[in-house]
Amino acid sequence: MKLSILGCYSATPRALTNTTSQVLEISNHMFLIDCGEGTQVQLRKHKIKFNRIKHIFISHLHGDHFFGLVGLISTFRLLTREADLHVYGPKGIKEVVTLQMKLADSWTNYNIFFHELTSTESELIFEDEVVEVHTIPLEHRVYTNGFLFKEKPKDRKLDITAAEDAKINVAYYRKLKQGFDVTNEEGKLIKNTLVTKNGKKPKSYAFCSDTVYNESIIPIIKNADVLYHESTFLEKHAHLGPKTKHSTAKEAASIAKKANVGTLILGHYSTRYDSLNAFKEEAKEVFDNVELAEDGKTFDFK
Amino acid sequence: MKLSILGCYSATPRALTNTTSQVLEISNHMFLIDCGEGTQVQLRKHKIKFNRIKHIFISHLHGDHFFGLVGLISTFRLLTREADLHVYGPKGIKEVVTLQMKLADSWTNYNIFFHELTSTESELIFEDEVVEVHTIPLEHRVYTNGFLFKEKPKDRKLDITAAEDAKINVAYYRKLKQGFDVTNEEGKLIKNTLVTKNGKKPKSYAFCSDTVYNESIIPIIKNADVLYHESTFLEKHAHLGPKTKHSTAKEAASIAKKANVGTLILGHYSTRYDSLNAFKEEAKEVFDNVELAEDGKTFDFK
Repeated sequence: MKLSILGCYSATPRALTNTTSQVLEISNHMFLIDCGEGTQVQLRKHKIKFNRIKHIFISHLHGDHFFGLVGLISTFRLLTREADLHVYGPKGIKEVVTLQMKLADSWTNYNIFFHELTSTESELIFEDEVVEVHTIPLEHRVYTNGFLFKEKPKDRKLDITAAEDAKINVAYYRKLKQGFDVTNEEGKLIKNTLVTKNGKKPKSYAFCSDTVYNESIIPIIKNADVLYHESTFLEKHAHLGPKTKHSTAKEAASIAKKANVGTLILGHYSTRYDSLNAFKEEAKEVFDNVELAEDGKTFDFK
Repeated sequence: MKLSILGCYSATPRALTNTTSQVLEISNHMFLIDCGEGTQVQLRKHKIKFNRIKHIFISHLHGDHFFGLVGLISTFRLLTREADLHVYGPKGIKEVVTLQMKLADSWTNYNIFFHELTSTESELIFEDEVVEVHTIPLEHRVYTNGFLFKEKPKDRKLDITAAEDAKINVAYYRKLKQGFDVTNEEGKLIKNTLVTKNGKKPKSYAFCSDTVYNESIIPIIKNADVLYHESTFLEKHAHLGPKTKHSTAKEAASIAKKANVGTLILGHYSTRYDSLNAFKEEAKEVFDNVELAEDGKTFDFK
């Protein structure tokens, strides 16, 4: 599981900082999460292959999270993309993208499937054999969802020598990897754990931006390996949180602690601050394993 | 008259090149012409004060000419702009901008006046005491206008010593600057040219992008001091012009020559070419005074 931060600042793109966008590489998927203005240029700078992106998740329709979407969709068209594209986001996202294609008389030559979200309960919005994605209803000034990406339980690791010694027919290896006990060629039941080891632990990533401090998300993100939680403000501006529906670094850390996550990544910083160090310091008062998102930074979670 | 090129490439923004946007400084106005994705960042890099921009002209609704508009309007709001903003562009531009403000529940605290264009004849769309702006109907895949910016005739330059010697009352100085003959304090008619000199020559700038080769624009842009004309292709791809409704550098030069303009600036280059030199060389075969637009370049027309 690998996370590339394309942009992690709030409000507006500037000469050296970008608004929210990130790419999560998980179980061979490349999920694009949010798409602020300039995201397509950030993707190029990161040398991320455009055609590997098949699913885009948009948290909410504030410009710093989605003004780059229509440009990216348009560039996919110019690059003669053929693969389907799935876009998940609040109701209205289809209308605004298609209106711009209509005005430009530039329809895509690939299929776009819009999955418009309206529920205020967490729901499963994507699932295949290896991963599932759930919404995390957030509390912001407009309808907003975070997203929980969860790898499915992985196959057990087969000890082939042990399986051969136990005289198990290769036809049963798939069942062994899935955790079943099987009968060997002599008709004897072989316990699974005798010939397999635990597989890789499935990973999970929770993206929560933008939101005011909101404990109701804790059951959904409980025990996630990694939590990205917005931290727009430092403590000295904590009073702005409830009004603007944003959080402080310390509040993000409090959610991380109560949800018992592995690592907390802070981001969505207000551009009023000159340095990011204070964000980490304030969060660390509450929760130990804190990382700072920075534009261009990649986190590799082995 | 000063022209700052914020972006001059076609199709899509890339790591080192930007799509169309430029700022024309003329008679104390700062006119923004087209607004591709990332224009607001380019404005910051150029240190152009956002609140000096009061008029934005959008040629057409292809993404590389307007996907940065909604972000710029949104950033004006975040910067607590108060001044009115006037946006000139094809019908539909108001709907697409207001839809995005509605979805974001983020209405501007300043007034935006949309001047939607539908005419296929050249029309006067802005005028004040010092400058006027006319549309230049272009022929592209969607409804498109270029824009002709014309300074109004400037006051004549008064030779105060000569006026005093001619015993003209100061109350008549304004009339003298406007070119009238006046009567002096002895009742004698003084010819204007005896006490004034020619004022500064009014300048004009014609922006023509995007368009196929189209001679019908020539009467409108005749004798312009500066013509920016798109040159998407080199001669070797001239066959793509009529199909995509774009021009070659040589065609741009041909228009410049027939319209007898002072300087031709080429731009809107296809991103397929590694170097811009050939654009200049091919244009110079037809017209001598050719300049290449480049992102970040400023032309000062004294």
